[in-house]
Amino acid sequence: MNKRLLALLLLGLCLLLHAAQPKYIFLFIGDGMSTPQRMLADEFARKAGHGNLAMNTLPYSATTRTCSANSLVTDSAAAATAIACGEKTNNGRIGMSADGKRRLESCAEVAHRKGRKVGIITSITINHATPAGFYAHRKSRSELYRISLDLVASDFEYFGGGGFAGKHNDTKDAEYKGDIFDLARKAGYTVCQGKDAFFALPKKVGKLIAVAGDGGLPYSIDGQESAPTLADYTRKGIEVLDNPNGFFFMIEGGEIDHCGHSNDAASNLREVLALDDAVKVALDFYKKHPAETLVIVTGDHETGGMTMGFAGTGYALYMERLANQKCSIKKFTQILQDARKQKPAFTFEDAKPLLAKYFNFAFEGDVKKNPMVVTKAELANLEKAFREGKLPNAARLLIAAKAGVGWTSGAHTALPVLTTSQGVGADLFMGFIENTDIAVKIKSLL
Amino acid sequence: MNKRLLALLLLGLCLLLHAAQPKYIFLFIGDGMSTPQRMLADEFARKAGHGNLAMNTLPYSATTRTCSANSLVTDSAAAATAIACGEKTNNGRIGMSADGKRRLESCAEVAHRKGRKVGIITSITINHATPAGFYAHRKSRSELYRISLDLVASDFEYFGGGGFAGKHNDTKDAEYKGDIFDLARKAGYTVCQGKDAFFALPKKVGKLIAVAGDGGLPYSIDGQESAPTLADYTRKGIEVLDNPNGFFFMIEGGEIDHCGHSNDAASNLREVLALDDAVKVALDFYKKHPAETLVIVTGDHETGGMTMGFAGTGYALYMERLANQKCSIKKFTQILQDARKQKPAFTFEDAKPLLAKYFNFAFEGDVKKNPMVVTKAELANLEKAFREGKLPNAARLLIAAKAGVGWTSGAHTALPVLTTSQGVGADLFMGFIENTDIAVKIKSLL
Repeated sequence: MNKRLLALLLLGLCLLLHAAQPKYIFLFIGDGMSTPQRMLADEFARKAGHGNLAMNTLPYSATTRTCSANSLVTDSAAAATAIACGEKTNNGRIGMSADGKRRLESCAEVAHRKGRKVGIITSITINHATPAGFYAHRKSRSELYRISLDLVASDFEYFGGGGFAGKHNDTKDAEYKGDIFDLARKAGYTVCQGKDAFFALPKKVGKLIAVAGDGGLPYSIDGQESAPTLADYTRKGIEVLDNPNGFFFMIEGGEIDHCGHSNDAASNLREVLALDDAVKVALDFYKKHPAETLVIVTGDHETGGMTMGFAGTGYALYMERLANQKCSIKKFTQILQDARKQKPAFTFEDAKPLLAKYFNFAFEGDVKKNPMVVTKAELANLEKAFREGKLPNAARLLIAAKAGVGWTSGAHTALPVLTTSQGVGADLFMGFIENTDIAVKIKSLL
Repeated sequence: MNKRLLALLLLGLCLLLHAAQPKYIFLFIGDGMSTPQRMLADEFARKAGHGNLAMNTLPYSATTRTCSANSLVTDSAAAATAIACGEKTNNGRIGMSADGKRRLESCAEVAHRKGRKVGIITSITINHATPAGFYAHRKSRSELYRISLDLVASDFEYFGGGGFAGKHNDTKDAEYKGDIFDLARKAGYTVCQGKDAFFALPKKVGKLIAVAGDGGLPYSIDGQESAPTLADYTRKGIEVLDNPNGFFFMIEGGEIDHCGHSNDAASNLREVLALDDAVKVALDFYKKHPAETLVIVTGDHETGGMTMGFAGTGYALYMERLANQKCSIKKFTQILQDARKQKPAFTFEDAKPLLAKYFNFAFEGDVKKNPMVVTKAELANLEKAFREGKLPNAARLLIAAKAGVGWTSGAHTALPVLTTSQGVGADLFMGFIENTDIAVKIKSLL
């Protein structure tokens, strides 16, 4: 009897231990995505009738402190190193200790060493700080060519999304060994460039580098006809990585951060939604393999000091008004420059139709009936900004004010991020944690 | 064998069911306290060597949406009704449905009905919206006298902290029945006013109303010599409420919100620390009764759009510089007014020593060596503000800029709050929840 009970206990323990090791791990990182970014997009999606964000339905959540070894406000390099390797380092370092001397092993490298396939994708350049933290070891995030060498040397099975910065023009670098794509092909990678080539890829392909172009993916708000989406790259990743030994797959929403730096709320929330579309792909996979899959969604830091309230709108938030913005501030800046080239005597009156087209601002009517009507004071502000060459910034400020969204910085802030999770081992991600705990816990699950 | 296993299973189930009903429930509410407020105080305490906040060490956490029935940005009345009663209502309503017609039952009332003792305390007035949500039922939070009548009628065992607003001067009110203290005494309450009387209270006392004065407790940053602290009122509450049937105890840190409305970061974080001192009292009780106690810490909404980063300080946060501020902005305003009364020809030169004394601003020296040195541009700002009668506001902005703390609103915002919990039933508070879920879950535990 005692022996039988013991056997049952041991069986239970075995099941528990087995269950506690996910075969498939998805780690989503929203760059510059903390609770304000996740919730602004969430409220926007709800109001538009799309329900709330998938990433916000995961049952476990942890408030995650982001400070680096040398600053309460981290940069993406130190944050990526912390999340990937489990050790706080100085801002700027990639997979190296704070003193820049000790090489740190990432959870992706541990997974690969233990026989799993590994995928790393992002919506910005693939040798940018966040993805680099999972495969590279460099004193500085600015060593772009060397980081790309580390990418090829990693032997990971799948890289993609955005292209490479500095892949072949760093010829002054003492370590220069040739064009990264050439080196990748020599190392056995299939290199796939552009949208058509991506969708023409066979289902079964060996090691793959699939990039949309030289830079990041187009901003979601600007339309993504020219490139596959982050969700497309995620779907492809599952095809490439799925195998009997399982996989580790990191997916970064990198342009959330860029839209945070430019305090562009409408573009920011579209990037969060784009990341959420990729999360949905992972959750579909989870539903097919619930006993073997772990899905984690986190951010590396907050960017911009975004708030969901603004002095001008008092006790109200009208995030749905951000739907009136039809392109990113970056693209609007370009549109204005192009219009100026077309017509050298370009005046504010010429800019008005563009403001109407791309922000839905109305220059006639009653603001009480149509909140997008530009008031006299707002018009004066826009005109002044036009004269000073700062119209895109003024347009951004105006739509933010009408939506009730505030910003306090063009840099990162120290607000903790939110980590949510579902699946095998998700219960490890609870309460208050440090960003380093994410790597430590993932490593413990491998 | 099968029967024995079944018995064991049933025993386990019984234990589980028994364990799932906490005898003692503490519910802490920081008014205007979301993650930025909790984390700014946390980082401040860490830097000062006091470790992190007790409220941030609780093992379970839930991101909590705060919207009311008629606005994404809630007021404290609708938030209190949601947290206490479990139903979204319109801003302004207290314990009533959105249409103002249906009376809602609070979890405090359910607890009382089921034989538990109930305590409600706050650092602001006890008939303010947040505490009122637990005992009152009124169409409007502004019906202060009637809310006080509901307080007396509730028959709850313990009220305290701040005093009553409008307790005896609403004689035009058709419902006027006399001074609230007189009515309370008639209803069997001991009414205790002031600090000395509070500390002279016997250990065993019946139904108790213990208030510091007519208004709220003094701001923590201004020194609390004149009144017991929220922690003192919490300790007393445990004495009053402890009994074999258990208790429900709501403790509000109400002045966090006031310091949020005035964008006074230094005072705000001291109020969070004062609430945390009260949380520590509950956690000490929890340690003595771990199998019977549930401690929950939440907020009702965010106030001020506080951020942990500011354009001026870039990738840095210097919250420790807020320690230089020695009094609240409210008190500094009073100090300036008093100084003006003393010297009618009061100049900016006269104000400088006060700025030095209460903010540690230095008017000589190198800002690179001492960050509290006022630069030429900052000095010009302070002088301009002095001329416009806005010196306290300018001083607030200056110390916030030096600390790297941003604000975007004088009102509430829609940022979700954080709910953390520990003890029996704490695992119900996880993931993303609505503020109404707090009441629903507490009621399910009663």
